[in-house]
Amino acid sequence: MDKIRFGVIGLGRFGEVHCQALSNLPQVELFALCTRTESRLRELSEQFNVPHRYADYRELLANPDLDAVSVVTMWDQHAAPVLAALDAGKHVFVEKPLASTAGECDAIVRAAATASCFLMVGHICRFNPRYAAAKREIDAGAIGRIVSLYARRNIPAEVSRTVLAKIGPIVGDGVHDTDLMLWFTGARIETAYAQTLSVRNLPNPDIGWTMYRFDSGAIGVCENVWFLPQKTPYRIDERMEIIGTDGAIYIQESAASLSICDRDGWRSPDTTYWPLVDGHRGGALREELAYFVDSILRGERPGIITPEEAAASVKACLAAEDSAAKGIPVRLDGATVAEGPPVFSP
Amino acid sequence: MDKIRFGVIGLGRFGEVHCQALSNLPQVELFALCTRTESRLRELSEQFNVPHRYADYRELLANPDLDAVSVVTMWDQHAAPVLAALDAGKHVFVEKPLASTAGECDAIVRAAATASCFLMVGHICRFNPRYAAAKREIDAGAIGRIVSLYARRNIPAEVSRTVLAKIGPIVGDGVHDTDLMLWFTGARIETAYAQTLSVRNLPNPDIGWTMYRFDSGAIGVCENVWFLPQKTPYRIDERMEIIGTDGAIYIQESAASLSICDRDGWRSPDTTYWPLVDGHRGGALREELAYFVDSILRGERPGIITPEEAAASVKACLAAEDSAAKGIPVRLDGATVAEGPPVFSP
Amino acid sequence: MDKIRFGVIGLGRFGEVHCQALSNLPQVELFALCTRTESRLRELSEQFNVPHRYADYRELLANPDLDAVSVVTMWDQHAAPVLAALDAGKHVFVEKPLASTAGECDAIVRAAATASCFLMVGHICRFNPRYAAAKREIDAGAIGRIVSLYARRNIPAEVSRTVLAKIGPIVGDGVHDTDLMLWFTGARIETAYAQTLSVRNLPNPDIGWTMYRFDSGAIGVCENVWFLPQKTPYRIDERMEIIGTDGAIYIQESAASLSICDRDGWRSPDTTYWPLVDGHRGGALREELAYFVDSILRGERPGIITPEEAAASVKACLAAEDSAAKGIPVRLDGATVAEGPPVFSP
Amino acid sequence: MDKIRFGVIGLGRFGEVHCQALSNLPQVELFALCTRTESRLRELSEQFNVPHRYADYRELLANPDLDAVSVVTMWDQHAAPVLAALDAGKHVFVEKPLASTAGECDAIVRAAATASCFLMVGHICRFNPRYAAAKREIDAGAIGRIVSLYARRNIPAEVSRTVLAKIGPIVGDGVHDTDLMLWFTGARIETAYAQTLSVRNLPNPDIGWTMYRFDSGAIGVCENVWFLPQKTPYRIDERMEIIGTDGAIYIQESAASLSICDRDGWRSPDTTYWPLVDGHRGGALREELAYFVDSILRGERPGIITPEEAAASVKACLAAEDSAAKGIPVRLDGATVAEGPPVFSP
Repeated sequence: MDKIRFGVIGLGRFGEVHCQALSNLPQVELFALCTRTESRLRELSEQFNVPHRYADYRELLANPDLDAVSVVTMWDQHAAPVLAALDAGKHVFVEKPLASTAGECDAIVRAAATASCFLMVGHICRFNPRYAAAKREIDAGAIGRIVSLYARRNIPAEVSRTVLAKIGPIVGDGVHDTDLMLWFTGARIETAYAQTLSVRNLPNPDIGWTMYRFDSGAIGVCENVWFLPQKTPYRIDERMEIIGTDGAIYIQESAASLSICDRDGWRSPDTTYWPLVDGHRGGALREELAYFVDSILRGERPGIITPEEAAASVKACLAAEDSAAKGIPVRLDGATVAEGPPVFSP
Repeated sequence: MDKIRFGVIGLGRFGEVHCQALSNLPQVELFALCTRTESRLRELSEQFNVPHRYADYRELLANPDLDAVSVVTMWDQHAAPVLAALDAGKHVFVEKPLASTAGECDAIVRAAATASCFLMVGHICRFNPRYAAAKREIDAGAIGRIVSLYARRNIPAEVSRTVLAKIGPIVGDGVHDTDLMLWFTGARIETAYAQTLSVRNLPNPDIGWTMYRFDSGAIGVCENVWFLPQKTPYRIDERMEIIGTDGAIYIQESAASLSICDRDGWRSPDTTYWPLVDGHRGGALREELAYFVDSILRGERPGIITPEEAAASVKACLAAEDSAAKGIPVRLDGATVAEGPPVFSP
Repeated sequence: MDKIRFGVIGLGRFGEVHCQALSNLPQVELFALCTRTESRLRELSEQFNVPHRYADYRELLANPDLDAVSVVTMWDQHAAPVLAALDAGKHVFVEKPLASTAGECDAIVRAAATASCFLMVGHICRFNPRYAAAKREIDAGAIGRIVSLYARRNIPAEVSRTVLAKIGPIVGDGVHDTDLMLWFTGARIETAYAQTLSVRNLPNPDIGWTMYRFDSGAIGVCENVWFLPQKTPYRIDERMEIIGTDGAIYIQESAASLSICDRDGWRSPDTTYWPLVDGHRGGALREELAYFVDSILRGERPGIITPEEAAASVKACLAAEDSAAKGIPVRLDGATVAEGPPVFSP
Repeated sequence: MDKIRFGVIGLGRFGEVHCQALSNLPQVELFALCTRTESRLRELSEQFNVPHRYADYRELLANPDLDAVSVVTMWDQHAAPVLAALDAGKHVFVEKPLASTAGECDAIVRAAATASCFLMVGHICRFNPRYAAAKREIDAGAIGRIVSLYARRNIPAEVSRTVLAKIGPIVGDGVHDTDLMLWFTGARIETAYAQTLSVRNLPNPDIGWTMYRFDSGAIGVCENVWFLPQKTPYRIDERMEIIGTDGAIYIQESAASLSICDRDGWRSPDTTYWPLVDGHRGGALREELAYFVDSILRGERPGIITPEEAAASVKACLAAEDSAAKGIPVRLDGATVAEGPPVFSP
């Protein structure tokens, strides 16, 4: 078996986690790293024993031996390296959200549609065994037609502080649940209404609440409070409720399975997304990267998350942010919401 | 100690529960019952050994020995007996929602303000020890200023079927959490945005979701799905999340404390609101009735729930229903919601 | 309605809680207090406005106007005041465990059997609505014949430190679950095997584990760890699992329904046993005292907890402590456990 | 990278799950299958496209191209194929419990110690991310010295019925938690006391409860009720509580993270041990097999579970079964338990 030669573009904290997960995949060779910060580049290259180092992603993409890249830059710096990588014939794994504007999303979707190589967006929740089981049950008809969804994805204020300089809670985390709701319902979102609240006067609001209306009639609500108290015993409060005409599904990640009380207090560490197992990064992150790598090795376009789906989630979140700014509901087709009873076009 | 002579007006299922709870209070004599259904009147009068029976509440109110009444008629039939009782100088305990229109609410509030006797509305959750503890903590400053609230109060479709002929989920159950949110925040609601979905084409929608904006800036969301699947193991899925600037409070009534698995399945019966304890109705219902009776005996106006508060909750829920019908947010002060960033007037 | 004139003997922390609960019962007049500590006697008498004060319980019992007493002394000082009170014709409510030796238990049971007045032991869990519901379900046959029981009743080390000077975890807390297991099964305990561990070298061990064998064949296990870490977010970790031939019941008090996160951390205060509701002591403690008072007023011997039952629980716990000391199982009938397959005599 | 050529011996339900997990590992070629049941051999060989088929494991082991085997026969038929495989120079993965007698365990341990190839026992819980996190925390000193452990591992009666013909709950499931307790404490078990109850008169008892004493002084209790009611909403009720001198750890697998309510009822499927993810067997089973395969490829003896550890767990469980048969505690060193206070030799 040949190994996939992988490059990682963007070496922040999560870029490092990607390095850990990729270096733990037997089918992958961690081949190249890229960041503009020289010291960080050296540090991680040495730590993971990576032969090729670049300050400019265009040079990295020019390496003919490279097979694939993972783009872990800030979300508003996804589009350029992703488009360049596709153009260079490299397979691309890019973190969510796909991009920061609808136009960039469209450009990437178009490029991916005609590219010979694959593009997959890191909607990691689809590789969480709970959501995966939910999808399987829904597809098997266990709960009938979905009529109501609720998602909570809240994080402590101290974790969000620096993130809020770059992205707000509705896109930053709500895009996970927007994606899951679209995946579960198989419907389109017609309108978004959202409210936000700035508590700390950071560049983005601390709190976002979104209410979606799907063209199937279903109502979906996303809670994104990036302002949980300091002593919160978990890094994320993550729940989902899916109610259908014949059943319901409830998912709770937060603090449900593991609690540790030590001298400092009560806490529930992650055992789902990127836990350390035997010193290596396991969990859903490794699953999704392994799935992407297997898709490449088999030569089959990854089917679990398509670029179109990833673009649709971003657009819905941007509409929600638009609604929060305007104080009124926003239609995703660009039309004005008129007063009158809601009309569905299923 | 003299006993309070109590009458019950309205003898549906919940009227009977009131009879059970009142007859278990040592300070109360269950003195008179009233319903237009003769057989039911006879049945309950005999069961609870009640001396006085009436088909017309006006005749009941004319009984000079009666001290107080509990009004347990349908919500759109509250106003007339409540106003008449206050006029007749009887203390009045009335079930929530206070009344079915803003006008009726105002009329009752005015009548109560000048009446010599007391009016208390059955916002039973205030006597749930969990919400009571939350209020105490909030008042003590444990979580700082409230910035976000979420309440879930969902019930199985089979339980709601007959109720939906008379009342919808936003007022029918959302009024509980609207009241609690107003109580906890001490703020007023500025706008309501809501969506509803009719699954069964009953007179009221099966599902209601409401997003409130408080004049303090806080956002409050109420989930009222009256359409849980048949095999749901509890009669209510009831949760609340209160997030403040310095802390957070989480309440979960549903299935948290008691689960029973028998030949028929898994279930979690009520042990909070009106459980049977030693064959008698205990729980929060008895607590609130005992509190009302003690207030009468002490001659102190009940302070835990005021008529004004009860009226404010109804008006907010009616605004939410109005929003759901119109598809746009509704201001509680009657003004039109204009496009533009939300403005708060704290 | 005449009021019951009540005296409280023993004014430690829990004696004060009794005062709070009794003074909140409309059928009770808090009439007399007794403790040898003069300052405490004065403090609580003034706080609760109690007319009669005694340093010696015998003088208190000599008051002819007194109807009933609550004995809240240390468990090894229960017998004398209880026997004297019964002899003086006073109704007696005594905290659990009934007494500290089998002989004292027997003496009290005999005295209660011939007394004109009533004796009730404060096995408060029977008034917890969850255990009460469990008992009702079991009696209704919902889970068939009980075959296995597990109870956890753990408390933080800092809470138990002073208590361990006087009583160990197997009797101190295990007596609750021993009582509940006897109540639920309706069986007798044949053997007890227990192990204890002293971590802090206090007069009693910090940890006790007991395995009972009932004459019905059922196995019952009690976990009593009085050594939970300092940052434990609740004052008690209390659970019970009851498995029968046709079903099962699960009870969880700990942290299930209410969690508060404030500046100091995460915690789940009591909302079951003696919560403050509207400034008054409510919960199961008030329920059991109200039940006792109602029994007196009706002139009916309290049936929910009999002296014989309370004595049986103490004896089983003492046998468990005996087993822990000896390292072998102990038969409750005093015979030696012989090697050989267990024999039941149902 | 060369692939490991793997054979599976024993093709019951769990042998098939092994085939699914192994065929999903990129470093593995599923190379040979073995069972005496011809139709089953054909069915699975075709399903997984396995080139070599055997009715006799000795013939399978004679294939010189085979690198490793997975032994998934009944526990009392582990020893012969495991010893033969080690003798044939094949790497061996064998399901838990290692073997059915202490003598067989010792023989396997001896053979593994001198073999050139590796032996690993499928104590799958060590690859459950929750237990793995617990171990990491314990080793890091988060909870200090362990003083008390409790494990529950209960399964529905209908699941255990056929299994109970071959193995009882104390060894069948208790061996998991016995292993975890030994792993977590790093101590040896001094005594075992156990009780069992036969409800259905099957070859093994339905219920087993075990109380261990460790040489560190810690007490460990295992609950193994293979008799949960039919309507139990999960396939396993799995919990663990680990209390140390400085902290505590709580693990709950059962129903904590995912609940599904459909037309048939409420249920919580496995998302930890061998869930289907994207149609493939994922979870802890794949993790442990991947770890074993990686160990082979790296040429490093697997360190997470040693043969000695697996043997110690079996011996402790057999001692517990011996205790249940005799009605008295049993010392693991073979000495008789004498009456007298427990003595530790830490």
